[in-house]
Amino acid sequence: MDFTKKMLRDDALAGKTIVVTGGGSGLGKSMTKHFLELGANVAISSRNLEKLQNTASELENETGGKCLPVQCDVRNYDEVEKMLQLVLAEFGEVDVLLNNAAGNFISPTERLSANAFDTIIDIVLKGSKNCTLAFGKHWIDKKTENTSILNIVTTYAWTGSAYVVPSATAKAGVLAMTRSLAVEWAKYGIRCNAIAPGPFPTKGAWDRLLPGDLKDKFDLAKKVPLKRVGDHQELANLASYLVSDFSAYLNGEVITIDGGEWLKGAGQFNLLEAIPEELWDQLEAMIKAKKRG
Amino acid sequence: MDFTKKMLRDDALAGKTIVVTGGGSGLGKSMTKHFLELGANVAISSRNLEKLQNTASELENETGGKCLPVQCDVRNYDEVEKMLQLVLAEFGEVDVLLNNAAGNFISPTERLSANAFDTIIDIVLKGSKNCTLAFGKHWIDKKTENTSILNIVTTYAWTGSAYVVPSATAKAGVLAMTRSLAVEWAKYGIRCNAIAPGPFPTKGAWDRLLPGDLKDKFDLAKKVPLKRVGDHQELANLASYLVSDFSAYLNGEVITIDGGEWLKGAGQFNLLEAIPEELWDQLEAMIKAKKRG
Amino acid sequence: MDFTKKMLRDDALAGKTIVVTGGGSGLGKSMTKHFLELGANVAISSRNLEKLQNTASELENETGGKCLPVQCDVRNYDEVEKMLQLVLAEFGEVDVLLNNAAGNFISPTERLSANAFDTIIDIVLKGSKNCTLAFGKHWIDKKTENTSILNIVTTYAWTGSAYVVPSATAKAGVLAMTRSLAVEWAKYGIRCNAIAPGPFPTKGAWDRLLPGDLKDKFDLAKKVPLKRVGDHQELANLASYLVSDFSAYLNGEVITIDGGEWLKGAGQFNLLEAIPEELWDQLEAMIKAKKRG
Amino acid sequence: MDFTKKMLRDDALAGKTIVVTGGGSGLGKSMTKHFLELGANVAISSRNLEKLQNTASELENETGGKCLPVQCDVRNYDEVEKMLQLVLAEFGEVDVLLNNAAGNFISPTERLSANAFDTIIDIVLKGSKNCTLAFGKHWIDKKTENTSILNIVTTYAWTGSAYVVPSATAKAGVLAMTRSLAVEWAKYGIRCNAIAPGPFPTKGAWDRLLPGDLKDKFDLAKKVPLKRVGDHQELANLASYLVSDFSAYLNGEVITIDGGEWLKGAGQFNLLEAIPEELWDQLEAMIKAKKRG
Repeated sequence: MDFTKKMLRDDALAGKTIVVTGGGSGLGKSMTKHFLELGANVAISSRNLEKLQNTASELENETGGKCLPVQCDVRNYDEVEKMLQLVLAEFGEVDVLLNNAAGNFISPTERLSANAFDTIIDIVLKGSKNCTLAFGKHWIDKKTENTSILNIVTTYAWTGSAYVVPSATAKAGVLAMTRSLAVEWAKYGIRCNAIAPGPFPTKGAWDRLLPGDLKDKFDLAKKVPLKRVGDHQELANLASYLVSDFSAYLNGEVITIDGGEWLKGAGQFNLLEAIPEELWDQLEAMIKAKKRG
Repeated sequence: MDFTKKMLRDDALAGKTIVVTGGGSGLGKSMTKHFLELGANVAISSRNLEKLQNTASELENETGGKCLPVQCDVRNYDEVEKMLQLVLAEFGEVDVLLNNAAGNFISPTERLSANAFDTIIDIVLKGSKNCTLAFGKHWIDKKTENTSILNIVTTYAWTGSAYVVPSATAKAGVLAMTRSLAVEWAKYGIRCNAIAPGPFPTKGAWDRLLPGDLKDKFDLAKKVPLKRVGDHQELANLASYLVSDFSAYLNGEVITIDGGEWLKGAGQFNLLEAIPEELWDQLEAMIKAKKRG
Repeated sequence: MDFTKKMLRDDALAGKTIVVTGGGSGLGKSMTKHFLELGANVAISSRNLEKLQNTASELENETGGKCLPVQCDVRNYDEVEKMLQLVLAEFGEVDVLLNNAAGNFISPTERLSANAFDTIIDIVLKGSKNCTLAFGKHWIDKKTENTSILNIVTTYAWTGSAYVVPSATAKAGVLAMTRSLAVEWAKYGIRCNAIAPGPFPTKGAWDRLLPGDLKDKFDLAKKVPLKRVGDHQELANLASYLVSDFSAYLNGEVITIDGGEWLKGAGQFNLLEAIPEELWDQLEAMIKAKKRG
Repeated sequence: MDFTKKMLRDDALAGKTIVVTGGGSGLGKSMTKHFLELGANVAISSRNLEKLQNTASELENETGGKCLPVQCDVRNYDEVEKMLQLVLAEFGEVDVLLNNAAGNFISPTERLSANAFDTIIDIVLKGSKNCTLAFGKHWIDKKTENTSILNIVTTYAWTGSAYVVPSATAKAGVLAMTRSLAVEWAKYGIRCNAIAPGPFPTKGAWDRLLPGDLKDKFDLAKKVPLKRVGDHQELANLASYLVSDFSAYLNGEVITIDGGEWLKGAGQFNLLEAIPEELWDQLEAMIKAKKRG
């Protein structure tokens, strides 16, 4: 089994223009690269123009596709509108918005200032909302057909999680927005879906989130039933499916790709996996003896 | 069956101090009244001090309890801290925070400005966060025991809903915060729970939400399997349970009290209730004939 | 805080007749006792008549209430119908069905025979279905008003759980039945709700489920944010609320009472609670240094 | 946009052997055909051997693939074991089990006999369990690597649904089994996932489920935000992804493909889509006037 294989037909995204916020690095970059490989034009945005330009050049060289870097702080609605105009000027139309830009850090919640908490809400929730609103208004105004929004959320959008509470809060909001607009905007031909990725390590984000030796101490792979973290291509394959027309009947859905991580923690007796085979043998013998007794 | 009966023992909340944001009117006022009846001290807050003062006087007269009106815009963290200090000055300690303050209006999402959307996020999500953070930090700092937070959310916090997308987004965030801190702050003796009420009409909020004759045209009672809206006392009973020590083992839970409304819409074949008995008779006869045939 | 206190008014269940399957021992017995204390007539059923008779005598002596023992294997529809007739003969009418009878054991699933798996499905799912069908048909036929069904499920009804797969499977079915009939049978005045209890140790069931020293090795209290198991009275209080008229607007709802156990496992970063305060201090210092740098 | 296009690379399933229960007709046949097109060997099973043989011949002619018809009543564990042996004899090994066999009919629940209810539980839940147990034991015993189980469930597995309660009950059980074994059997290299399809009309099943003119009267397409039913190829594409190695990091997941149908019903204010644009204009004007006033 080779996780780095590409699954969709080579022309799966031909003719599509996709905007990936936070597309300059990490998972956003990996998805962008694969969209380019499948024939899409991609605009990537973030606050750091230089990084974006480097990524765009690199990916254009690797894939032969067209990648447009656009500086944009998604917290600012005016900047989002400008980004949209730049994309339209370059590509004529846009078909897909991928809300991937995010911020997160680990901390006991009582150590956070109200401002620090707000910053994450502003980037993740208001940022996604700004892009969604700007692109949606444009599509509805222009009667653009067959468009879609894909939001990157997280499994703790529905379970919550300690120590990343601003992110949990904001991502839950994004998920509710996904489901709400999937229903409301379907009449305009706009589909909305989400992906909840489990542990897909990326150099930048992962290091910031779990600094020092915490990455080893709290090895997230151990929490995954499949005993491994995800490969970026696996996420890129799923995202490509969801931004392609092949997923035209998925709407309002959030797909979890985490190897079963959240379920492993959730199920009450999953901890019994620590029981060795020999002990199960003894238990069985005990129970049978009791029945005979 | 009398929905206006009180269910808990008369002293169920004796000795407790409860802060109810948005407690000056609507459901917040109804819950406040019942908390007072059960022996609690209650502080109510909102932006409108005059309304708060009138409500406090009215409820003190009716119940013989102690109700403190405190002006506070929950969007402003400093005001929240001041509110907390006023409550502590008056009552010595506070045991329960009930995040009830909210804002909502119906509108197609594409008609909303980015600012209008933000306003709801700020009141509902950042407001609840501000109160949670201020009270939580205080409790943790003072090592106050046996405290709890109760958040009022909505059923579309998890399903989403068209036409109230800012509210859906913000309430989903509040729900994720509830579940996250239920786990993280349990070690400090702070429990977190939520209620998702279905249709409980209140003069103010309901009128604003569904203006003119829309209330009749879109009669929410029809969507409820039980064919009625909720009575305020039913919600007050549930809220009293959740802020009392009787619910000490509920933590991270959201209780829906909607007569089954959201499930009725959700289930794929629930619409078949429109089939009359006679038609079911015919269908049965048809199927039996087919089997014999 | 005293978990053993009773929360509802003393006459909260006066005039109600309640049938508790599996009521002879464990949680079923605890709930039965409290229903009697609150003025209800209760019929308890299980396969073991002698145990039922002892429990009924004991509880009648303790509470002064009326408790009817009825032998019944819920897997057998005819026995269920006979039980219903006996209850009607004794009490005239029945108001509430509490599906509490269950079976469970821990085992790796691949060690189970198809028959062993079926046995749990038959007791839990078909048993609950048999009682639900018999009581529901009776109520609909007699046009009995204001009746309800309460089903005891589990948190792994929606998350699933390893090592108790037959129970997870069957309880999930019971939960879907709860939600389905909450909508379908509301027009007949029948409400349906469920409780998902976390760890509430009972001598019998717990010993069978976790034999030998496994109870200590896999101490379920450790998985609970509140660091304790539940007290039977806490469950009895919640169940009393749900079978009383005070919960008349709850329908199709499942209330989890587990101290936050399932959420603690589910949230991705909840494991960071193992980080000591000193390390958080260091992390904060590191991050601040990085920002200044 | 062409819903009938194939999305995966032509060799996506080359070398895989897949068993599709209920593969002789309907959605099972559509998925089988596509698996064959993508290079898999497929065994199809049902009670009706003649239908299976016709389907197998037809699909082999159309695709050039290898399709084995195997008679099997999944309610009978011995027959399931025999089916497995026949598949192993023909193909050497089996990689994927697709539990697709199901039974369903619409009826008010109180009109059902206990036996009629049991029949659906036996086919859907016990049938899926029998296949899962037989295949799982075999894979664990033989240490077969990289296997998976895909279960077809429904959106009312978690919401419940009136009028199809036996199916809701049984499918919920299958979903819990999916999630439980995703965690428990991951250590053996067995992944478990599910699909919850919305309305994908098939001549046979649809006619039986909604006889006569009910299909038109209760047009399920109207409940779908996208205003259409699904195309079989859309489901086949998704199923192919989930049985292929490309989905290797999806585990314990249920993917809903329903155009947003269940969410549309669930969200509290989704019914406001009946408000025409002109009325929204008036409402806006009213609100603005109120603000100015």
